[in-house]
Amino acid sequence: MEFTSDNTTGAHPRIMAAIQAANNGRTPSYGDDPWTLAMERAFDDLFETETRSLAVATGIAANSIGLAACGGPGGVVLCHAESHIVTDECGAPTRLSDGLRLMPLPGDLGKLSADTVQDALADRFGHGVHSGRPMVLSITNLNEYGQAYTPAEIGALAEVAHSNGLKLHVDGARFANAVSHLGCTPAELTWKAGVDVMSFGGTKNGCWCAEAVVFFDRKAAETAPFIRMRAGHLLSKGRLLASQFIAYLEDGLWLELAGISNVRAAKLAAGLKASGKATLMADPMGNEVYAIWPKATGDRLRDAGALFYPWAVDPAGSDFRLQPGMELARLVTGFTTSEAEVEQLVGLVAAS
Amino acid sequence: MEFTSDNTTGAHPRIMAAIQAANNGRTPSYGDDPWTLAMERAFDDLFETETRSLAVATGIAANSIGLAACGGPGGVVLCHAESHIVTDECGAPTRLSDGLRLMPLPGDLGKLSADTVQDALADRFGHGVHSGRPMVLSITNLNEYGQAYTPAEIGALAEVAHSNGLKLHVDGARFANAVSHLGCTPAELTWKAGVDVMSFGGTKNGCWCAEAVVFFDRKAAETAPFIRMRAGHLLSKGRLLASQFIAYLEDGLWLELAGISNVRAAKLAAGLKASGKATLMADPMGNEVYAIWPKATGDRLRDAGALFYPWAVDPAGSDFRLQPGMELARLVTGFTTSEAEVEQLVGLVAAS
Amino acid sequence: MEFTSDNTTGAHPRIMAAIQAANNGRTPSYGDDPWTLAMERAFDDLFETETRSLAVATGIAANSIGLAACGGPGGVVLCHAESHIVTDECGAPTRLSDGLRLMPLPGDLGKLSADTVQDALADRFGHGVHSGRPMVLSITNLNEYGQAYTPAEIGALAEVAHSNGLKLHVDGARFANAVSHLGCTPAELTWKAGVDVMSFGGTKNGCWCAEAVVFFDRKAAETAPFIRMRAGHLLSKGRLLASQFIAYLEDGLWLELAGISNVRAAKLAAGLKASGKATLMADPMGNEVYAIWPKATGDRLRDAGALFYPWAVDPAGSDFRLQPGMELARLVTGFTTSEAEVEQLVGLVAAS
Amino acid sequence: MEFTSDNTTGAHPRIMAAIQAANNGRTPSYGDDPWTLAMERAFDDLFETETRSLAVATGIAANSIGLAACGGPGGVVLCHAESHIVTDECGAPTRLSDGLRLMPLPGDLGKLSADTVQDALADRFGHGVHSGRPMVLSITNLNEYGQAYTPAEIGALAEVAHSNGLKLHVDGARFANAVSHLGCTPAELTWKAGVDVMSFGGTKNGCWCAEAVVFFDRKAAETAPFIRMRAGHLLSKGRLLASQFIAYLEDGLWLELAGISNVRAAKLAAGLKASGKATLMADPMGNEVYAIWPKATGDRLRDAGALFYPWAVDPAGSDFRLQPGMELARLVTGFTTSEAEVEQLVGLVAAS
Repeated sequence: MEFTSDNTTGAHPRIMAAIQAANNGRTPSYGDDPWTLAMERAFDDLFETETRSLAVATGIAANSIGLAACGGPGGVVLCHAESHIVTDECGAPTRLSDGLRLMPLPGDLGKLSADTVQDALADRFGHGVHSGRPMVLSITNLNEYGQAYTPAEIGALAEVAHSNGLKLHVDGARFANAVSHLGCTPAELTWKAGVDVMSFGGTKNGCWCAEAVVFFDRKAAETAPFIRMRAGHLLSKGRLLASQFIAYLEDGLWLELAGISNVRAAKLAAGLKASGKATLMADPMGNEVYAIWPKATGDRLRDAGALFYPWAVDPAGSDFRLQPGMELARLVTGFTTSEAEVEQLVGLVAAS
Repeated sequence: MEFTSDNTTGAHPRIMAAIQAANNGRTPSYGDDPWTLAMERAFDDLFETETRSLAVATGIAANSIGLAACGGPGGVVLCHAESHIVTDECGAPTRLSDGLRLMPLPGDLGKLSADTVQDALADRFGHGVHSGRPMVLSITNLNEYGQAYTPAEIGALAEVAHSNGLKLHVDGARFANAVSHLGCTPAELTWKAGVDVMSFGGTKNGCWCAEAVVFFDRKAAETAPFIRMRAGHLLSKGRLLASQFIAYLEDGLWLELAGISNVRAAKLAAGLKASGKATLMADPMGNEVYAIWPKATGDRLRDAGALFYPWAVDPAGSDFRLQPGMELARLVTGFTTSEAEVEQLVGLVAAS
Repeated sequence: MEFTSDNTTGAHPRIMAAIQAANNGRTPSYGDDPWTLAMERAFDDLFETETRSLAVATGIAANSIGLAACGGPGGVVLCHAESHIVTDECGAPTRLSDGLRLMPLPGDLGKLSADTVQDALADRFGHGVHSGRPMVLSITNLNEYGQAYTPAEIGALAEVAHSNGLKLHVDGARFANAVSHLGCTPAELTWKAGVDVMSFGGTKNGCWCAEAVVFFDRKAAETAPFIRMRAGHLLSKGRLLASQFIAYLEDGLWLELAGISNVRAAKLAAGLKASGKATLMADPMGNEVYAIWPKATGDRLRDAGALFYPWAVDPAGSDFRLQPGMELARLVTGFTTSEAEVEQLVGLVAAS
Repeated sequence: MEFTSDNTTGAHPRIMAAIQAANNGRTPSYGDDPWTLAMERAFDDLFETETRSLAVATGIAANSIGLAACGGPGGVVLCHAESHIVTDECGAPTRLSDGLRLMPLPGDLGKLSADTVQDALADRFGHGVHSGRPMVLSITNLNEYGQAYTPAEIGALAEVAHSNGLKLHVDGARFANAVSHLGCTPAELTWKAGVDVMSFGGTKNGCWCAEAVVFFDRKAAETAPFIRMRAGHLLSKGRLLASQFIAYLEDGLWLELAGISNVRAAKLAAGLKASGKATLMADPMGNEVYAIWPKATGDRLRDAGALFYPWAVDPAGSDFRLQPGMELARLVTGFTTSEAEVEQLVGLVAAS
């Protein structure tokens, strides 16, 4: 019963096979190889448009490079108070850019509304150079609370962003889960709705380490190779990352795996609700379930060997308040999560 | 009727005279001069302890250097969401340090409570290196809403900070106003209550440009000269800044001037309350008054030539909400604010 | 006999008077004041073109902001190995910019030739993103060895810079001395020869603390206000700096003072050569004399109370080699250097 | 005939097998896994002492983290003018640290002597905070010109470094080649000679992407996890890197592969010398051969399909000067370089 994260598993066999196949012979280093070129074309095909893409080994690198490429002196990134770039990246987006500042904004379930963004733009930049200048709006999709932004919601955010001169960035570490849940195309969920640049994640969904910065705004991509380089994030053997992405995108593997994760999460959510012994923060729209149960239930699960993280809710980011004696548990499923694991956890909760 | 800020006035005549007097002859540059030494001793005398002090020309530099000296890799500064370092310094504390991140916390009237800090320490650093490590707690005294922290309040914050390994920093751009209001000694309001380093402001209260980083934790001061240097904040003619501070501290000029400002603010506050046409966000504890009145009143005042800033309240930092049609006005007094100006403004409000 | 630096003196009386005059009344802070506007127009008049200018309190800030405004991700500044930005600014140009790297190049007497720059561009940027991208060529005029670049020399450097996509930056901490020596106009020595941005120094030549970043490439100036702000280099009372510049430029005070310094240096150089007891590294073209004499002579001068710095020559930057037993002494004159001081020093050397 | 670099090949079969084996089951992410623990112990065994080690995916990250951990405000790294950190890392060591500056020093064949370092320490840090403070001496072993520092040479450099308060850092991207050539133990070439921290490279010698920062000075390692994190260099699936290192160090694979590369380079060097048609910059001490031949020879080789880089020698770093019409070629061998390739290249040169 492992529900701590979707990065505790290794790589899918087809990803491993791709790396193995890419290991033959010599090829130019630092991205001048056929695999990297093929990966770039695969992203074009996937998104049905000409993109610029750079592969890196971590999601933090991908987020930081994408944001940095859209930034400049005095730049500010508007984002949710509980977004990964704020809470879990130890300052990387600021360090790897020209000092971009993150401005945390509130919103239930980790989601930003267009109104919240509009208000922040109106209220918080009135002191000229003192306030800095807003340059990027960043959202996470699938977000940190397992909620998806729909194309319409993204369109509304893009409208606010673009009309104020900001780029729209998406942290898509779990983009596959969002696409799988919404049933739209990758294009509909990104550039067609106004997204300028995104992090396209593979590591949490079958790859060893494969994250890409994908630019739909190709002009914004111009400095990205330097930003990646000076951060030490250009791997010498480019085919290692590129071959993973090629296999990941081939024959819809990425959506197949995300679909499994989502189905497991949905089953878990349904089971918990049916148990009457837990409530959900919200119905999952991907592979993350946030359950509320008595601390005693949590203890019992831990005693039984279940692995998951209790979660602290940032009071600045949400109106959600946990009642005394209760525990908020984050339960993440992955493509290797079995039905049996889900059933076992639900059973333990039901019996609590 | 100029109530926009306490930095719209020039220097007090005694400060000008001190600069003029320091202008004779040659002296070593970059701080190896008698004025700088005298300034350092003057801070020791003022605070009744051995300090380390560095003068700079701006408050942002002072804050940034003080914070940077207490920071290190992965460091986080806990501070109020509406503190000057968050909202008005365009990222300087991060840039001039080793990438210190600011973690904005809520609190009414710009004040942090020890509980809020304790909760943040407990809740937000559970992800190991992902979260970074808390290294500094920074408060503003007098704060951005004209409220003072008492020695007891500072002591409680220091207890939380030190027991968790954090240094306690005070942005004292308006420290004189706080000391004047509270009637305590500078020592009681700083190191005796647990403050490790502070920005000691002169510019808003009679100097041209004189801000000092004052370290009570002398070990923390060791790298500060390099931090100042690499930020371009070491003036070649050190006597310009030092001579201002010497005159500022001499014969209690600093408290005399702050006292005038505070008296004006108190009169203004009393007058507004008595008018029945405005309410106050809180009784002022220094030289800043936050008044709430109908927008029409604000317009009438502006038409009459009154200068002040309408203020946007950060919903993340406070429970305060402005009612529709109302305006929150920041009114700042200084040592050149006249009784007549105060009376004129109050009269206009009363007649509205 | 004080020859350590031109920043050991205070301000010229006309500068002091200007500050005093600017001290009356209230005026908007942070540069929205009539003095700042007048300063900006004074620079336009001085340079006979429309400029963008920002005043700061230190030369390092001016250099750093000017360079930063011309930089970007992966940017490299080509400059002399013994330039002030390399040897004396403790990394400020890198810190206050988006990480601009300085590439030190060789050249006799602190001067860069167009060939050296061309060779560096051809040889050192062959590794794509690994090498970074050259974005700025920076020279110092008057330079660190008291040598001036002529308009023709600057033109040749500008040709190399611009044809390779670089901006040309001038560190003009002693620009007045260069103009005074060359007898050309400020325009001829800057934008007419191809300079894009410069630091215009006042502090070493009569001001308390007044340095300006002057942009001839006005587009490059766009982000400079943010760069200044986030470095904490925007003074709240703008008139303090602006009033100095206004007086400094009025009625040719700046050239009058530089002329005095240069005349003193020329007299010093001539006297030392005539003494037969010292040689010069080169004839001075401004207010810095580099003399070579036996260490015993240096000791004798120090015993007699002469103040000056022995200088270490960077073997990477020059073919100059000091013979054993000899000392290289830097002797700097200022507008307060008296004829008597010069004569006394020369007399001591002659008698050695 | 591929001699461009040792990173154009993929991974050794035993490395691939190790990754495949590590792919089974779930394990905690972010380095809390058994493979990472085993890797740490493997480094202890290899170096015969207790080390602290962190794995990353690129050599630039390893160098930058190691240097950053030894740095602080105003810090300067002394290093060779042609070292990889100066010429090929696009500023990463500065960006990923607290702004460490690199001070390039001269030396033939990419090597620094203790005298050169001592002179730099004596001559270039005389301006107090203006000069910054020297904190690290960094050398490359095997260096950029295929030369090895012996334990005695390292000991002499360490003596200068430590007696001046600097840490000694080694960029060991090709450390295996140096150890193989010198026939000493890893301990003798590192901490026993005074090395405090090193980058231990695997990528150029059989791994896909495996570089480690190895600290012998364990106190210096304390902040390294935060430095790695905030640079986005902590991979979520730690076993990917750790399993490579485990296999790399097992049964001496690392030295076996480096031995092959070195033998190929020695054969290549001997053949070129014997041909009478090329000279060597120096006898190789690892897997890099620098040959000098007429440009026409270089063209002929390129026409025949040989791949290698012509090299530009930095005039600041060496007394070496290339004669007109000649070409300096860098020829790098790897563990997949065949004898036939070497013979073919030598044959073509001999026939030229």
